[in-house]
Amino acid sequence: MTMTRRAFVRRAAAGLAAAAAVPTVRAASVVLPAPEPGEKFHIGMAGYTFRKFTLEDTLKALQKVDVRLLCIKDFHLPLTCTEAEAAAFHETCRKYNVTGYGVGPIYMVGEAEVDAAFDYARRVGVKLIVGVPCKLADKRRVEDTALLRHVERRVREYDMRYAIHNHGPDNLPYPTAGEIMKLIGDLDPRIGICLDIGHNLRSGACPIEELLRYRDRIHDIHLKDVTAASKEGKTVEVGRGIIDIPKFVRALREAGYAGSCSLEFEKDADDPVAGVAESIGYFRGVLRATRA
Amino acid sequence: MTMTRRAFVRRAAAGLAAAAAVPTVRAASVVLPAPEPGEKFHIGMAGYTFRKFTLEDTLKALQKVDVRLLCIKDFHLPLTCTEAEAAAFHETCRKYNVTGYGVGPIYMVGEAEVDAAFDYARRVGVKLIVGVPCKLADKRRVEDTALLRHVERRVREYDMRYAIHNHGPDNLPYPTAGEIMKLIGDLDPRIGICLDIGHNLRSGACPIEELLRYRDRIHDIHLKDVTAASKEGKTVEVGRGIIDIPKFVRALREAGYAGSCSLEFEKDADDPVAGVAESIGYFRGVLRATRA
Repeated sequence: MTMTRRAFVRRAAAGLAAAAAVPTVRAASVVLPAPEPGEKFHIGMAGYTFRKFTLEDTLKALQKVDVRLLCIKDFHLPLTCTEAEAAAFHETCRKYNVTGYGVGPIYMVGEAEVDAAFDYARRVGVKLIVGVPCKLADKRRVEDTALLRHVERRVREYDMRYAIHNHGPDNLPYPTAGEIMKLIGDLDPRIGICLDIGHNLRSGACPIEELLRYRDRIHDIHLKDVTAASKEGKTVEVGRGIIDIPKFVRALREAGYAGSCSLEFEKDADDPVAGVAESIGYFRGVLRATRA
Repeated sequence: MTMTRRAFVRRAAAGLAAAAAVPTVRAASVVLPAPEPGEKFHIGMAGYTFRKFTLEDTLKALQKVDVRLLCIKDFHLPLTCTEAEAAAFHETCRKYNVTGYGVGPIYMVGEAEVDAAFDYARRVGVKLIVGVPCKLADKRRVEDTALLRHVERRVREYDMRYAIHNHGPDNLPYPTAGEIMKLIGDLDPRIGICLDIGHNLRSGACPIEELLRYRDRIHDIHLKDVTAASKEGKTVEVGRGIIDIPKFVRALREAGYAGSCSLEFEKDADDPVAGVAESIGYFRGVLRATRA
């Protein structure tokens, strides 16, 4: 994955600091395909979109819509997988010209689950974890600042990036990018955000402004569109909702974003392909039309 | 359907001339839904895309991708249908928020088939026929200038528009818009072109230039994308081929085009929905991104 020079310099510096602190855990690393033509970023798929589908059917759908990156969910590759099973997973992906570029979102309650997730990512061979580090309070998952310090130790140990997923006004931890930044601003910059632009807006926070404001800490993006800037907002096909996609695309470029815009299409779980195809088509149409 | 003022004035004048010549055949006329937001033109579907599907399954697919206009092919409503059958057809379409706005393409060999097509359109209640008036020569369909005069008589009699479909370099009559204009330039302006932008380009003629040049005679458009500006060019999802869709969209606006851009997606006849959805999404993404 290409990086902005600024991010590269910071990441390299952080890497040196980590090397001085603890030995890095080495892992075979996934190689990403080229980004979208003329862009620094990629188009990908959040595995959650295909939560009711087998891996092979998911990959067939991705091939159909010409999407080459997949963020891996546990129902397609269990958290308990062996390295051999992970290798077989990647081999299956290769048949469809798809690369599993990261894992998650993974909810992690307590240090042991954080540790398990990092070791999972190592076995899978990816350098990006999308996660929700939390604790239980009154049976509800809530933010856990102490656990974030533990995540930071593991980020340094494994030299991985950890993107905390924001989940809007649904009584889950980390509603917006801004709320995440209040908690991670002083931590290793490899701890960042998976900016879910739909949930961010449903919490009343503009995802385009937050993308620009926190650009150096946006490690992954969930692309979607929603019907309203409130808890009642539902996911719809990209272009049918209220997010200004051309403005979002211009912000991606201004931010120098070099990660994946991974479509998370929650609608039509039993038959998502038409909505996925329309969303990807719309996004690529906007990309094309807004290039000089 | 809205019209440019120029087209309206010409059509009105032609209507007066026709009224003086022969009595107009009256028919219940289909009312079109609103055009695309901010545009004068509509997005529609060429029935041929769903040639392997029942009407109901076609309409379900159109509803899924939010397309509200259908150019009716004979396999969805036979040329021999009664007015009652046509009314039942429209009733079915209404259930899915779809309007059958025209009929065709219909190949018409000789005057009797032209007459049958006009009477079909009258029974269906549409004011637009997409047709290919031709004769047989060595078992091959070829252009027929004498038959065009007959079409002109019927156009005046029925006060309908007749859009001749251009079919590129495939040994079928009327390869390009320019070739059609050589034959119809002096005829009643209600005789015009269904500009198939893919086939036009496959014949080496730029569909964007021809749209602008013959704007007053473009009565329907087949939207598609192709892989090459030659006979070898194949239909692909809009945005994956070589047609400059943003430039095409700007030309539609410059031309004041107020008809339908009807997707004709020849690929994946057995399972076209993903390609259709991607194409419609791409086109709408370009529309959105190129609006001021």
